Amino acid sequence: MDSMLAILTLIGSVAALVFAYTRAKKVLRFPAGSETMKKISASIHEGAMAYLKRQYRILVIFFVGMFCILLIMAAAGFLTWFVPFAFITGGFFSGLSGFVGMQIATRANARTAAACQKGLNKGLNVAFSAGSVMGFTVVGLGLLDISIWYLILSVVFKLPIEDITGAMITFGMGASSMALFARVGGGIYTKAADVGADLVGKVEAGIPEDDPRNPAVIADNVGDNVGDVAGMGADLYESYVGSIVSSCALGVVAFKNIESVDQLSAVMIPMILAAVGVLASIIGALLVRTGEDTRQSTLLRSLRVGTNTSAVIIAVVAFPLVWVILGKEFIGIYFAILSGLLAGVLIGLSTEYFTSDTYKPTQNLSGKSLTGSATIIIGGLSLGMLSTALPIIIIAVCIMAAYGFSGGFADATRGLYGIALAAVGMLSTLGITLATDAYGPIADNAGGIAEMAGLDAEVRTRTDALDSLGNTTAATGKGFAIGSAALTALALIASYVEKVQQVGGSSVKLDMSVMNPTVLVGLFIGACLPFIFAALTMSSVGKAAQSIVVEVRRQFREITGLMEGTAEADYKTCVDICTKASLREMILPTLLAIITPIVTGLILGYNGVIGLLTGATASGFVMAIFMANSGGAWDNAKKYIEGGNHGGKGSEAHKAAVVGDTVGDPFKDTSGPSINILIKLLSMVSIVFAGLVVNFHLF
Amino acid sequence: MDSMLAILTLIGSVAALVFAYTRAKKVLRFPAGSETMKKISASIHEGAMAYLKRQYRILVIFFVGMFCILLIMAAAGFLTWFVPFAFITGGFFSGLSGFVGMQIATRANARTAAACQKGLNKGLNVAFSAGSVMGFTVVGLGLLDISIWYLILSVVFKLPIEDITGAMITFGMGASSMALFARVGGGIYTKAADVGADLVGKVEAGIPEDDPRNPAVIADNVGDNVGDVAGMGADLYESYVGSIVSSCALGVVAFKNIESVDQLSAVMIPMILAAVGVLASIIGALLVRTGEDTRQSTLLRSLRVGTNTSAVIIAVVAFPLVWVILGKEFIGIYFAILSGLLAGVLIGLSTEYFTSDTYKPTQNLSGKSLTGSATIIIGGLSLGMLSTALPIIIIAVCIMAAYGFSGGFADATRGLYGIALAAVGMLSTLGITLATDAYGPIADNAGGIAEMAGLDAEVRTRTDALDSLGNTTAATGKGFAIGSAALTALALIASYVEKVQQVGGSSVKLDMSVMNPTVLVGLFIGACLPFIFAALTMSSVGKAAQSIVVEVRRQFREITGLMEGTAEADYKTCVDICTKASLREMILPTLLAIITPIVTGLILGYNGVIGLLTGATASGFVMAIFMANSGGAWDNAKKYIEGGNHGGKGSEAHKAAVVGDTVGDPFKDTSGPSINILIKLLSMVSIVFAGLVVNFHLF
Repeated sequence: MDSMLAILTLIGSVAALVFAYTRAKKVLRFPAGSETMKKISASIHEGAMAYLKRQYRILVIFFVGMFCILLIMAAAGFLTWFVPFAFITGGFFSGLSGFVGMQIATRANARTAAACQKGLNKGLNVAFSAGSVMGFTVVGLGLLDISIWYLILSVVFKLPIEDITGAMITFGMGASSMALFARVGGGIYTKAADVGADLVGKVEAGIPEDDPRNPAVIADNVGDNVGDVAGMGADLYESYVGSIVSSCALGVVAFKNIESVDQLSAVMIPMILAAVGVLASIIGALLVRTGEDTRQSTLLRSLRVGTNTSAVIIAVVAFPLVWVILGKEFIGIYFAILSGLLAGVLIGLSTEYFTSDTYKPTQNLSGKSLTGSATIIIGGLSLGMLSTALPIIIIAVCIMAAYGFSGGFADATRGLYGIALAAVGMLSTLGITLATDAYGPIADNAGGIAEMAGLDAEVRTRTDALDSLGNTTAATGKGFAIGSAALTALALIASYVEKVQQVGGSSVKLDMSVMNPTVLVGLFIGACLPFIFAALTMSSVGKAAQSIVVEVRRQFREITGLMEGTAEADYKTCVDICTKASLREMILPTLLAIITPIVTGLILGYNGVIGLLTGATASGFVMAIFMANSGGAWDNAKKYIEGGNHGGKGSEAHKAAVVGDTVGDPFKDTSGPSINILIKLLSMVSIVFAGLVVNFHLF
Repeated sequence: MDSMLAILTLIGSVAALVFAYTRAKKVLRFPAGSETMKKISASIHEGAMAYLKRQYRILVIFFVGMFCILLIMAAAGFLTWFVPFAFITGGFFSGLSGFVGMQIATRANARTAAACQKGLNKGLNVAFSAGSVMGFTVVGLGLLDISIWYLILSVVFKLPIEDITGAMITFGMGASSMALFARVGGGIYTKAADVGADLVGKVEAGIPEDDPRNPAVIADNVGDNVGDVAGMGADLYESYVGSIVSSCALGVVAFKNIESVDQLSAVMIPMILAAVGVLASIIGALLVRTGEDTRQSTLLRSLRVGTNTSAVIIAVVAFPLVWVILGKEFIGIYFAILSGLLAGVLIGLSTEYFTSDTYKPTQNLSGKSLTGSATIIIGGLSLGMLSTALPIIIIAVCIMAAYGFSGGFADATRGLYGIALAAVGMLSTLGITLATDAYGPIADNAGGIAEMAGLDAEVRTRTDALDSLGNTTAATGKGFAIGSAALTALALIASYVEKVQQVGGSSVKLDMSVMNPTVLVGLFIGACLPFIFAALTMSSVGKAAQSIVVEVRRQFREITGLMEGTAEADYKTCVDICTKASLREMILPTLLAIITPIVTGLILGYNGVIGLLTGATASGFVMAIFMANSGGAWDNAKKYIEGGNHGGKGSEAHKAAVVGDTVGDPFKDTSGPSINILIKLLSMVSIVFAGLVVNFHLF
């Protein structure tokens, strides 16, 4: 039974990886275009790899250091010996997901541009195939990690099921740390380059975006890859794995005292659900194709066919799955899964409504640019803040539904298991949703290459159509990322509570009441953390962007013939500045996320940590939506004006909108997405260090 | 004993009111300057009164409506019959505080300007005396309301002490509703006028601030009065009364089962502390005077002599007070009071550090204007977010200290009583701290009048010195307002928990664990509320400001000779637009604050409400500081540039800084301060409607 389970998951994993491999082969069969295009693409590839290499060099120090700390803690009896190794593999696979995704993305960009010379469908084909490589690599590696560990722990070490899931959850900390580094570093890189390039290029020198005369243009394109591809890959690897292992851990607890159901069955549900999700995603991915109609609605429909088919398959298959594995009595758990799936879709729709320029909110926002940049900033901030209401209600209903349907009002642990499964349901079709998300930056890059290589305007129109669609699918993707982060964080908090009881035994005095001052104080600190985190990452972008501004200004001044197009810009220096700055700036926020729960625990005890985690999850969820939606709306309000409204490009209104967009850049691509990882990393760290905190705490 | 207590409090109240009266007399004895100055002052007075009259007309409908609802609820047995009447008096006195403060402020503005013609000390004298009228009226009326109700309930109705404090806490809801209306309405008014006047006047037409040619200039000056004077008065009346009544209510519970101490003694502590605070404030106020040195440090020192003396008196007197009333055994409660007093001072210092241009953060922020408005916006947002860390730590330590010192770890109710007393300690010297705060807008107005009446540049320098000092004292005042709001809100949540148990009896199943899904969902909704609230108030300012922009542009275009100074602007229309817009826009946010806890309670039950209140308090505290500090820093970064740095007035950097300041206006003067009231009003409403929610709830 044990090994059968792991083998089923392995099959899902292998299917995903094989599919990713065939897609990669397919992408590489396409021609990479002219020599100029190849050269540009090679520069981007080179810059991205240089960044990754340097990042990994720093991360090796971090991971080895943490590994040693965990070894010491294991020696001191606060951890099992598996934890340090689980930590390392989590980090390794998370990094590998980003690496593979970026390898293919930086090769697909010129190929997408070249394919767009032939037609829109060809372009979509290349970009979406490349996005699929990323999507399926992430789920494939995630399931691989899970099933290998499961096999080792159950077959080789013959551990009881509680200990298996207890050990597996700790590789989430490795994945989360890696994800946070990748997201923060990549996010700072991409926005520093983008903001820096825009501030001098677009605003001061008045040259178009992606103009080859702009010395920061290669850095900007590298940024799309290291931020939106590698960063996102590591991020969603972590969400995916985190949701599965936390529901496995909670499942074991929930079915401890139930005669009719084996605990193993509860562990099977998330694993098999994920494996089925892979197959559903493959079917969906094979359905995506489009004609030559560049209207966004048509393009969107072709992608939606894929994602919707996958979702429907999951919704249908999950029912017999739960029925057979857990029995009729616990069929309510199916509805928990379904509520998660639905909540993800609804939060995505809400994001789309608030940030797409086909709807009122963003259109109205663009009108505020008529009275200047101050009013569009105020408008965008208030739009983002207001847009948090709907997702909060959706997630609230989802939590109550998942908890209630799975029987939480009779037995709380089952309710928490239901919440964890809602997250798994939401992420089960990650293979395809991530593919639709990851193809966006590839299309963006393709547009840049088309511009720099001076291809026909028609090509640019096609890449723009793909890119613009990418913004919409990114909105949906963000809905899934944020929603699943909140649910997974809650599941992890519940796992933490179990862990504390497990390591502390009868010495533990749980009092999670909000009127307990340690919980309360923890809550306050937790509520504050996302603000601090957003502040640090935003100011890092600001600092890095300022050094780019200085460098670009210098090149414009010192390189004669640059503006006339007779001399070439020194792209490498800008790439170098971004790399150094982003790697330097990623360290502090990540360390903060790791140290805070430990210090809080040592002072306030485990009850304080529970308050901290809850406060950070609640306030982080709101902040993440606020920042993502404000940023998205500013971006599209600017595009709406560029589409010919309120005076169009170059008008005063447009200038004001560019200011809004620039403020929104770190909002939506650096700080906002990092908060999703932050709230999970806090819980992961707390779980790993639970033994320490239970034994030593001031209050 | 009962009546002695009320009489002691009455003495404090009368002392405060008499002192306020003598100060008012003193202010009115000063000459109001030239005919022009009198005329301008009269216009401001008239505009402010017109606003108040219309506001009260709307509020009468609200209060009568709520009164009827409460009567019905009392008839249905969910409330005692005192509640509707307590509600009304709370609202009435809160409104009266604002009214009196504004009456004198609008008369003191021209007198301050006139006094500044003679010297700085004279100017400070008038402005500070007028500010004192406000400060002492607020505390006087607060204590009057408390002592009268106490007398009625104890002497006339002979209620037991539990019922007295239970009834008294409900007049907090009246005061909070009034305060929220006043803060939101006033805040929208003042910033709509300010932003509107600046956007067209300063940015487009390039005329200086307070230029009489700007049609919105009178509205701008009216705004200072209705927002910063009437709004702040109602706000702090509510904080003051709220902290006292909630600690009385908790004191009764905390000392229920203690033989050695009478419950009445626990009620006496906050009341007598407040009364002593009045006397300490009067002594402090009498010590404030300055020479002719316009340096801010000298001026600041002269005010600090007053506030520090009062604080020291309280710190000294509170010790024997606690010792005598509660006995040596409970002297720890003294340290709870002291920790509140200290926390208020420290949060104020932190605010000052982050927002004053004599320190690095704001100076660095002003440098970000060199790369444009986008970077100064990003910088200001991240500065504000980062600045939440210190106050969170301060309040966390204060909560733990107040709870621990007063014996919370032995008996939780005593710990909560300690937290409530920390808030009373913080606000005990409100008479003088509010005076130093309220004189700011008067000085600001005086400067406006000096400009409009064309007085000597020297006069303007003096009013500017007073105004600039006002910004610093306002920072300290904000620290007290935010800190006390958080502590009072916590005390009110504790009171709510007591109330639920009291009205529900054994049927109540309290489960305040954060792992209870209703608490958790409540927490999420609560964490979101301050964002929604900030969004609504910000967008109201934006909307109202846009109508001002349109009107001012119209007048510039249509009134011939206006720019040349040969024709007069139509000030009245702008005043009218602001009045209508702000009154229209204040309704939705306030209703939201009242309806949300009731609806949440009916769906999620009292446990959900407790989650809601805790989430809103934690996230609201962080948001309030973030918004106040971002706004303050932008304001002073602009002033720093105007002081001759980074190119000075009129430079590109200055223009960028003006954008920052404009964004910051609703942050610091509308949304931020309203959140303080929001978090308390939510609790107040919950307490009043506890009977309903205990009887009817879905989960």
